[in-house]
Amino acid sequence: MDNASLLSAVREKQPLVHHLTNWVTIYDCAQLVKSFGASPVMAHAAEEAADMASIASALVLNIGTLTTDFMESMKLAARAANAKGAPVVLDACGAGATPFRDRMVAALLDAARIDIIKGNASEIARVAGEQVKTKGVDAGSVEADLAGIAGALAAARDCVVVITGKEDIVAGRGARYVVKNGHELMSRVVGTGCMAASAIGTFAGVCPDDLPRAAVAGLVCFEVAAELAARDATGPGTFRELLFDRAASLAGRDVAAMQKVS
Amino acid sequence: MDNASLLSAVREKQPLVHHLTNWVTIYDCAQLVKSFGASPVMAHAAEEAADMASIASALVLNIGTLTTDFMESMKLAARAANAKGAPVVLDACGAGATPFRDRMVAALLDAARIDIIKGNASEIARVAGEQVKTKGVDAGSVEADLAGIAGALAAARDCVVVITGKEDIVAGRGARYVVKNGHELMSRVVGTGCMAASAIGTFAGVCPDDLPRAAVAGLVCFEVAAELAARDATGPGTFRELLFDRAASLAGRDVAAMQKVS
Amino acid sequence: MDNASLLSAVREKQPLVHHLTNWVTIYDCAQLVKSFGASPVMAHAAEEAADMASIASALVLNIGTLTTDFMESMKLAARAANAKGAPVVLDACGAGATPFRDRMVAALLDAARIDIIKGNASEIARVAGEQVKTKGVDAGSVEADLAGIAGALAAARDCVVVITGKEDIVAGRGARYVVKNGHELMSRVVGTGCMAASAIGTFAGVCPDDLPRAAVAGLVCFEVAAELAARDATGPGTFRELLFDRAASLAGRDVAAMQKVS
Repeated sequence: MDNASLLSAVREKQPLVHHLTNWVTIYDCAQLVKSFGASPVMAHAAEEAADMASIASALVLNIGTLTTDFMESMKLAARAANAKGAPVVLDACGAGATPFRDRMVAALLDAARIDIIKGNASEIARVAGEQVKTKGVDAGSVEADLAGIAGALAAARDCVVVITGKEDIVAGRGARYVVKNGHELMSRVVGTGCMAASAIGTFAGVCPDDLPRAAVAGLVCFEVAAELAARDATGPGTFRELLFDRAASLAGRDVAAMQKVS
Repeated sequence: MDNASLLSAVREKQPLVHHLTNWVTIYDCAQLVKSFGASPVMAHAAEEAADMASIASALVLNIGTLTTDFMESMKLAARAANAKGAPVVLDACGAGATPFRDRMVAALLDAARIDIIKGNASEIARVAGEQVKTKGVDAGSVEADLAGIAGALAAARDCVVVITGKEDIVAGRGARYVVKNGHELMSRVVGTGCMAASAIGTFAGVCPDDLPRAAVAGLVCFEVAAELAARDATGPGTFRELLFDRAASLAGRDVAAMQKVS
Repeated sequence: MDNASLLSAVREKQPLVHHLTNWVTIYDCAQLVKSFGASPVMAHAAEEAADMASIASALVLNIGTLTTDFMESMKLAARAANAKGAPVVLDACGAGATPFRDRMVAALLDAARIDIIKGNASEIARVAGEQVKTKGVDAGSVEADLAGIAGALAAARDCVVVITGKEDIVAGRGARYVVKNGHELMSRVVGTGCMAASAIGTFAGVCPDDLPRAAVAGLVCFEVAAELAARDATGPGTFRELLFDRAASLAGRDVAAMQKVS
């Protein structure tokens, strides 16, 4: 299915997208999912994370404000999603910033099947075992063969890898795409990276059998909405609100006309 | 007192409204309370939840991102509010979605007096022991005699029950109201259900002796502000911001002219 | 350096500003820092709080939704910042509201060096040991010699003390300033106090050798942005978004023309 058709599928099927995410952008992730017409839920207690995952169509994990307890709940949720066959997206938010984060990501990848690993260049390079240094959660540019790193990590983990940036790379399971949508204002707003993972999870919830396509559709719809929002924004504050508006009113014909995928 | 007079009372008395709520919409709950002219506070540590509740005019509990530790703090806060005579509002957010949530709600109802139980149709049906299935925190429509369920739960627990939806039902303590305000955009925004509970808590803080009236006034003022916000919104993002604006500037005469209560 | 030059320094050096803050306004703190051109990070796990602090240019601590675990992480982060020589800002959010908060603040001040203590009048009076009563986190006005209290606390703790209000007092390390910028709408929005601390931390990150100057510059730039935002806002919701816009586009000449510092 094409990107516009997948957007229609999200609105029609309204997938439940379970999140264990960070406390900074938790609202933004929920509102973006809801703007797309899907149904967000956030439940991190160890006693219910698996139960909630087992009724969800997709699971999004984000390590932005990770703790050890939270990681245990992530594992429970991921295994429940695995058992159900629901796609699991990991936003490797801040990977490389501290040894703790790196250990936790490694433990999570060993404990459950992660279907899509998403991060910026330095985060994915770190998850792939490359020697890079991340500055907090905000870094990004590393000099490296990003497509090569993405492909190798995808092959090693038998998953889809998404590297976000000026151009987004989607690699794995025999596919390879580059998405060139988006707007410079996205880098001025807290949470666009987290929202990208939620967008991917939302579309994965209605397209579990072709996750590279789902990832591309999620990125395209999110970034086209961002381009539309940027037209009327006067800065990062108004941009954020208009992004939710434009995602909610996003027309299939705009997606088709504005998408830049190769 | 009528709805407009209760709004004036909120602005004049500026009640302190204590919350133990979820991490997704915690800002929205706080800002709505503040927009109405009252004073929000959020403090969930077991060591201070009761102390904070004992200086507050109302307590709002929301189980959206519940944990067992958090539930223990909720019990402490609720008992302190009970001892002081301050109204306690429970938003049964996501009740029915997992067995854990159902157990926690039941334990809370046994551990302290809850004065107002608020939820959408499926949540309240679940708390009342009806056999329904909730989809995450976003569900709502169940085929049932909602007024009958609300009345029965209110009688069984000697409390006020609020079922939010296209028409809100307020039942209990000898009263029965239906509020028909609101706007379709409310269902497109994360947190409107949580904010409804905070609005009820705010008005309960200045009208503790007639909680059905307080609940109606809170719902009416919140939903009239939403109707005014919807006039200028282009989607859920701008709607949310304008909702805070319109709640802050809400005129008593608009409340009186636009309220739809039967 | 003057205030406008310090704003340029923030944008050029993009300091990493680590936060252990509250769950209500965590987004707002992050977005304000990012709007100024710096890089926010929030990481509170005990296992990484110190590591993150050791790569940051400044650390902002906020006790708004404090727990005992969180306080332990705060101590670890503060000591790491101390060891590195990075400035530590404490927002004494809600000090005086409960005995727990007072105990935790006292323990924190004993466990690490706090370079800047910031609060409203009643919070700072409480930290200074004056007998005042705080109403939640929203209070403020106490009848007292505020400049005297600030100076005495600064001397006793060898730190900088900032009392925010209609006029902000910055005292300590031989300096004494009053900042008279800002707008009435700031008191209608949740999180302006927390954002003030983040602004101070951001500027302290590029001006660690003159913290009174850094605090003044942070307050001035934040409050001038607020004045500009208020021109186009219709209430607290739109004001908040425009505040992020105006902070992002803040011109040095506007800072120079509008600053009110004595």
